[in-house]
Amino acid sequence: MIPRYTRPELIRLWSDHHRYETWLRVELAACTAMEAAGTVPAGTAAKIAAKAAGKLDPARILEHEERTRHDVIAFLSHVEELVGEPARWLHLGMTSSDVLDAALAINLVEAADQILVGVDLLRVACRRRAEEHRATAAIGRSHGIHAEPITAGLVFAGFYAELGRARAALVGARVEIAVGKIAGAVGTYANLDPAFEDAALASLGLRPETVPTQIVARDRHAGYFMALARLGTAVERLAITVRHWQRTEVGEAMEAFGKGQKGSSAMPHKKNPILSENLCGIARLLRSYASAALEDVALWHERDISHSSVERVIGPDATGLADFMVRRAAGLVDGLVVNAARMRENLDRTGGLYFSEAVLLSLVRKGMARQAGYELVQRNALAAVEGKGSFRALLAADPDIASRLDATEIDRAFDLAHHLRHAGAIIDRALAEKDAP
Amino acid sequence: MIPRYTRPELIRLWSDHHRYETWLRVELAACTAMEAAGTVPAGTAAKIAAKAAGKLDPARILEHEERTRHDVIAFLSHVEELVGEPARWLHLGMTSSDVLDAALAINLVEAADQILVGVDLLRVACRRRAEEHRATAAIGRSHGIHAEPITAGLVFAGFYAELGRARAALVGARVEIAVGKIAGAVGTYANLDPAFEDAALASLGLRPETVPTQIVARDRHAGYFMALARLGTAVERLAITVRHWQRTEVGEAMEAFGKGQKGSSAMPHKKNPILSENLCGIARLLRSYASAALEDVALWHERDISHSSVERVIGPDATGLADFMVRRAAGLVDGLVVNAARMRENLDRTGGLYFSEAVLLSLVRKGMARQAGYELVQRNALAAVEGKGSFRALLAADPDIASRLDATEIDRAFDLAHHLRHAGAIIDRALAEKDAP
Amino acid sequence: MIPRYTRPELIRLWSDHHRYETWLRVELAACTAMEAAGTVPAGTAAKIAAKAAGKLDPARILEHEERTRHDVIAFLSHVEELVGEPARWLHLGMTSSDVLDAALAINLVEAADQILVGVDLLRVACRRRAEEHRATAAIGRSHGIHAEPITAGLVFAGFYAELGRARAALVGARVEIAVGKIAGAVGTYANLDPAFEDAALASLGLRPETVPTQIVARDRHAGYFMALARLGTAVERLAITVRHWQRTEVGEAMEAFGKGQKGSSAMPHKKNPILSENLCGIARLLRSYASAALEDVALWHERDISHSSVERVIGPDATGLADFMVRRAAGLVDGLVVNAARMRENLDRTGGLYFSEAVLLSLVRKGMARQAGYELVQRNALAAVEGKGSFRALLAADPDIASRLDATEIDRAFDLAHHLRHAGAIIDRALAEKDAP
Amino acid sequence: MIPRYTRPELIRLWSDHHRYETWLRVELAACTAMEAAGTVPAGTAAKIAAKAAGKLDPARILEHEERTRHDVIAFLSHVEELVGEPARWLHLGMTSSDVLDAALAINLVEAADQILVGVDLLRVACRRRAEEHRATAAIGRSHGIHAEPITAGLVFAGFYAELGRARAALVGARVEIAVGKIAGAVGTYANLDPAFEDAALASLGLRPETVPTQIVARDRHAGYFMALARLGTAVERLAITVRHWQRTEVGEAMEAFGKGQKGSSAMPHKKNPILSENLCGIARLLRSYASAALEDVALWHERDISHSSVERVIGPDATGLADFMVRRAAGLVDGLVVNAARMRENLDRTGGLYFSEAVLLSLVRKGMARQAGYELVQRNALAAVEGKGSFRALLAADPDIASRLDATEIDRAFDLAHHLRHAGAIIDRALAEKDAP
Repeated sequence: MIPRYTRPELIRLWSDHHRYETWLRVELAACTAMEAAGTVPAGTAAKIAAKAAGKLDPARILEHEERTRHDVIAFLSHVEELVGEPARWLHLGMTSSDVLDAALAINLVEAADQILVGVDLLRVACRRRAEEHRATAAIGRSHGIHAEPITAGLVFAGFYAELGRARAALVGARVEIAVGKIAGAVGTYANLDPAFEDAALASLGLRPETVPTQIVARDRHAGYFMALARLGTAVERLAITVRHWQRTEVGEAMEAFGKGQKGSSAMPHKKNPILSENLCGIARLLRSYASAALEDVALWHERDISHSSVERVIGPDATGLADFMVRRAAGLVDGLVVNAARMRENLDRTGGLYFSEAVLLSLVRKGMARQAGYELVQRNALAAVEGKGSFRALLAADPDIASRLDATEIDRAFDLAHHLRHAGAIIDRALAEKDAP
Repeated sequence: MIPRYTRPELIRLWSDHHRYETWLRVELAACTAMEAAGTVPAGTAAKIAAKAAGKLDPARILEHEERTRHDVIAFLSHVEELVGEPARWLHLGMTSSDVLDAALAINLVEAADQILVGVDLLRVACRRRAEEHRATAAIGRSHGIHAEPITAGLVFAGFYAELGRARAALVGARVEIAVGKIAGAVGTYANLDPAFEDAALASLGLRPETVPTQIVARDRHAGYFMALARLGTAVERLAITVRHWQRTEVGEAMEAFGKGQKGSSAMPHKKNPILSENLCGIARLLRSYASAALEDVALWHERDISHSSVERVIGPDATGLADFMVRRAAGLVDGLVVNAARMRENLDRTGGLYFSEAVLLSLVRKGMARQAGYELVQRNALAAVEGKGSFRALLAADPDIASRLDATEIDRAFDLAHHLRHAGAIIDRALAEKDAP
Repeated sequence: MIPRYTRPELIRLWSDHHRYETWLRVELAACTAMEAAGTVPAGTAAKIAAKAAGKLDPARILEHEERTRHDVIAFLSHVEELVGEPARWLHLGMTSSDVLDAALAINLVEAADQILVGVDLLRVACRRRAEEHRATAAIGRSHGIHAEPITAGLVFAGFYAELGRARAALVGARVEIAVGKIAGAVGTYANLDPAFEDAALASLGLRPETVPTQIVARDRHAGYFMALARLGTAVERLAITVRHWQRTEVGEAMEAFGKGQKGSSAMPHKKNPILSENLCGIARLLRSYASAALEDVALWHERDISHSSVERVIGPDATGLADFMVRRAAGLVDGLVVNAARMRENLDRTGGLYFSEAVLLSLVRKGMARQAGYELVQRNALAAVEGKGSFRALLAADPDIASRLDATEIDRAFDLAHHLRHAGAIIDRALAEKDAP
Repeated sequence: MIPRYTRPELIRLWSDHHRYETWLRVELAACTAMEAAGTVPAGTAAKIAAKAAGKLDPARILEHEERTRHDVIAFLSHVEELVGEPARWLHLGMTSSDVLDAALAINLVEAADQILVGVDLLRVACRRRAEEHRATAAIGRSHGIHAEPITAGLVFAGFYAELGRARAALVGARVEIAVGKIAGAVGTYANLDPAFEDAALASLGLRPETVPTQIVARDRHAGYFMALARLGTAVERLAITVRHWQRTEVGEAMEAFGKGQKGSSAMPHKKNPILSENLCGIARLLRSYASAALEDVALWHERDISHSSVERVIGPDATGLADFMVRRAAGLVDGLVVNAARMRENLDRTGGLYFSEAVLLSLVRKGMARQAGYELVQRNALAAVEGKGSFRALLAADPDIASRLDATEIDRAFDLAHHLRHAGAIIDRALAEKDAP
């Protein structure tokens, strides 16, 4: 985790301190469930909580780990030194992964909740801009080439919808990861009982793993990191769009530029879309973490621990970056300076070439074969591109066109409002979808 | 697609012929919807279908494409030459991607359906083996080291459950990909109507894209290929388990060996788990395709076509391999020769060391601190490993143990049936889950 | 391999027929080496070659494989049926991988040679365009925003240099992969001799693996596919530049547009950079194949065969695509229509804002602190961007500037030829590098 | 970077403090070069160094960055406040990336040097173990199945050779990354001179970028991270081998087990190969970082800054992990407890089945067709596997064998020393290779 790209909330979430406190929560939940079943003396969990909860010393635990080279045993040794006798009732019949995996699930759920708040902020921003620019005409582009008119609101609505799908994927992954196991060494409850587990996990907001091995199955984690990769990629599409809009020649939108901010150490006139570029980089990282997570799934037999080093890195890094990313993107969309006048200027630049399809369809309706009509329209369109006149005028002057379409009919094909008549409905459709925050 | 790893069904599904026929289905669906709305003369679609459906000539279309360098225009030219005049009513107000993306969605759904049949075959096989070996005792292993007893049925039940999650992910991806757009050049319905689209897509089993651009959003496709990657990885875990079981020293299961099959050109005595190894390689391919698909999402503006070359390769390859993989895995599990006697032999090999935890817990219940108990048990366990006697005997001879546990109490810790008493319930829990075929 | 993106040469290279013929070459090379050592009767290889070389029937071999499920044994059975008695001297002491890996190395070297020819064609094209546009002024862009002037030749020289590095990496990978082993089952030469291997491999243009296991080490193959990924990525940078240049608003270059070619089925006026977009997609595929290849390295013990399915797919696909890609890119660069007038127009668009740094430096030379100067220049640059006047005029009118720089001094900062005085030298430096074809 | 997997040296290397000091080194090198050329007053660099070198305050720079949102401007502001007037001569005609990229190159070279020391330690350990176990017989395995005998030394020699190739790749990447540019905004030396750059970079141990844009080309960095991925994968193969050796049933080697170390919180008898598993996880991370780095190459025009967030993460993380990994692997190999007796026991377990090939070859030499001989030998081998007698005895009792080979001839095929006669030469060949440390 690098502070530059991580909010303090996520840094705290993945701190040693919070991790150990979460381990203790798991141990206490298990202990409480055993008390209820009579396996452990009543009141044990309360006694332990009183002496240990909130009082764990990460540095001391790391000292123990230095010696034992085993993190959970080190943790338990520390609890024992804080708590004394009642500590022997902890971890009864359990294995380290019972603690670690439930705690990891809790932390990944906490992280998902933080990220989802950010996703909602970002979607709210996209929704607002979609409504604001519902009718702001702009040229649509395919292959980077002017195609036909759209509205700027459609673009934001598209981000809104895509982020809704990414959100749904993350919500699904959050459900899938909210799973623990308190099932002992190889998941057989040899010295435990599924009933303890049910109760203990429920009190932590988790469900039991269907078929536990020593650990919770890692396909769940891979699903989680794939959902983050997908979220990052959705933000990347938004960010790339902003980068295109902000290009000097396009100039249709630009990132807000803070007072005092400097664009370039060498060139004082520059305003660069650096937030968007930054988001593109983060998307690459999130994609790469998903690859590593997928390689963690096929562990050996009832478990090997090769996933652990990966998760220690990508658990904090992927969630920290994703959380940072969606909030940065929300600020970006909120502050984006949309230049509707420039959009209109660009739209008008090609002199209505984008109405070529409407002209073609009018010809077809008049009985021309499609391919013949296509060649007729293309002939005039290319002439217009080569600067031989306005597309509208060239069409009127082309005898093969004029013999089929009169001036009024040509005018009807050159109607922007007609062209965009469905834009509002598309936006409404997107904003009405159930995943809206 | 390489025939070696693709079933004929999938080769047909991705053939030029089937692709072009699917394009025609989409054009006809749109045409029919327009007829209903009165935009196109009644009976047009029927006339076109009569002359073209089932009669498309892929070679001829490729000839047209050679000249136009545009696949859909080439296709339409061919339809025009087959059908004559009515063809001019096709593709009205539509753009190529209206056809291509709806057709791709149809083909990906068809492929998913094939794969899901295979997944169900595989799950049925896992279910059968889980029930068959519900009580077959075996040693569970963590880190490749003997841990505590499990049953072989638990392992199959674990595959069953994991494949159920992979199946659910693929079913979700299938829903998400079953989307088209008939919305024209940049998705604004400029010369179309959302009502046409609804009707046309519904007749094809598809839903409309929420906010179409020129194309259907590519995060849907990335989701699809991630689901295949996840499925591949689930199969990989199964395959790696078989490979471990079949190791000479382990020998707990082996792939069925066909009559006439040869294991090695040099070593006539070998029986190698080559099916399982093959499946591991395929899982790598499926993971890599998901990476490429994720890079396809952030296209420029209303679309660029960089995703197309990727999809032409990974659409057929990923689905063909996934389909092949699950059926090969089903055969593997069905035919797997499980050696229960060898499982028992391996289980007994460490002389009950796996009961060490039960001994430890007995000590704790007698009032020992956990860490002190751990060291006591470890001392005897390591002595047993070093060949200084059986673990059971060493424990009994250790005065620090003997002073706390008598022979009966030690015996109680050495009870395999007790150890495995919950195995059946776990298996039942897995097989009862709703994703079962 | 899909024909659309593969040249016939590469399809032939990876055909069953060529593969089997290569196997036979390896077997004959080994046989010949053994004849020289007296282990095999003189003349055996010649007898076999006479009856089998060029006469192998792939369909027949696949029939044998159906039965034996072992490709090399199937191949040997076929040779035996063609050749009769002398065939028993083939494969003596060898294992399948002795044949397969040497043959794969030969095929990968052949593929690399094809690709390298294409790389050289591409580099020749870049060199030519670099020289042609050595002095064609254009605006350089960072973050998509106008920065300072460059020449178009510099851009092509940059591609030339980067492709030179990619070429060097591929040449290195070609050397590294040109390795075989004829060392028997687990690489110990138990029934062979390193001397045979030396001679046999040398006659095939290969070197012996340093420490053979059953196979040639797969880090070599991973290195090869990483080199292809790198090559693809270098081409991608070129392709993305073309896509940016061709944007409607930029218009500085465009892909050659074939006679009869159609840009869009809906919009007859469009000319899209589809070749470049296609290349970007292929780059993603090449990157993904490298991931799969890296997962192939850490095989079990002396080998497992999980790499095989991966290599059967990515061997042909990655080389076929890379070969196609560099030749397509060569055609793209050769035919690219560079619009120098538009480059100049875009360069002039910002009214010399790009001289802001030169102005800043003049102020610093006059004794201003850098940061103070920066703010002074930025003030006028932003005013110019906001349309308050030309940058040159605003500077002259700013009293804080005027008090430090007179008109002549400002003029000196606004000198394009001075700005670009080193461009030619950079281009010469690039074209002089030793990796030039 | 997580301290758990990073040595303090690498944490220092990537600290803010060291980074800023490196930036200052670059600025001073450029300043000194300009002094030599007379562009800057003599003695400026010395004055600045006296007041700033070793005195930079990272916290203060971050404060400036908070305001300017530009890291290099923030750094320069801080130097200006430390140094006063002479600071205005810094950064003259330069752009931020002139500083950043040269500094990054220096840091990546420093990191590579640390990693290479670790690689050499690891190779020394492999060499020692290869020599030590030059003649330690063991069973070679393919597909996890016993194949033919090898020596343990061969395995270590194989690691040694593979690590030598990975080392060569990293050395190559180190050369390729040792490149900077002091060429100004878009790499044209508009306000600079290539001669300054040569001198400045040479004094820093760097070469100039062939064709600079605003930045050093990112294919160099991708090459670097691919080399680390390759190194990680080489270590992974070693680690997987150890994990296999340590399996309970195999037991041929085990990781050294520290005094006080605990294998499992539940099972006191366990000794797990956790170092090796940890290394496997790290290899996955290194592979994933290479993916992200490859996506950084195709930046827009003369640069965009999307690579920066990726590099801020993977620069420290990938090098920190690689450095940690090779040293941990060196310790692992050094301390590995090789159990030669168990190797011999496993070797003997299959009763000489591995001599089947030698028997087959004897039959072929006696004139049998290969395929007929294969079936004869396989018949007896499978009988032996099924427990019907020892392979040696079964062969002698098979009339079809006995009619061709007498007892002495069979004995000759069952000669382990003969089988392994070349092992020493292979090891010597590996250890003699020039990449040896």
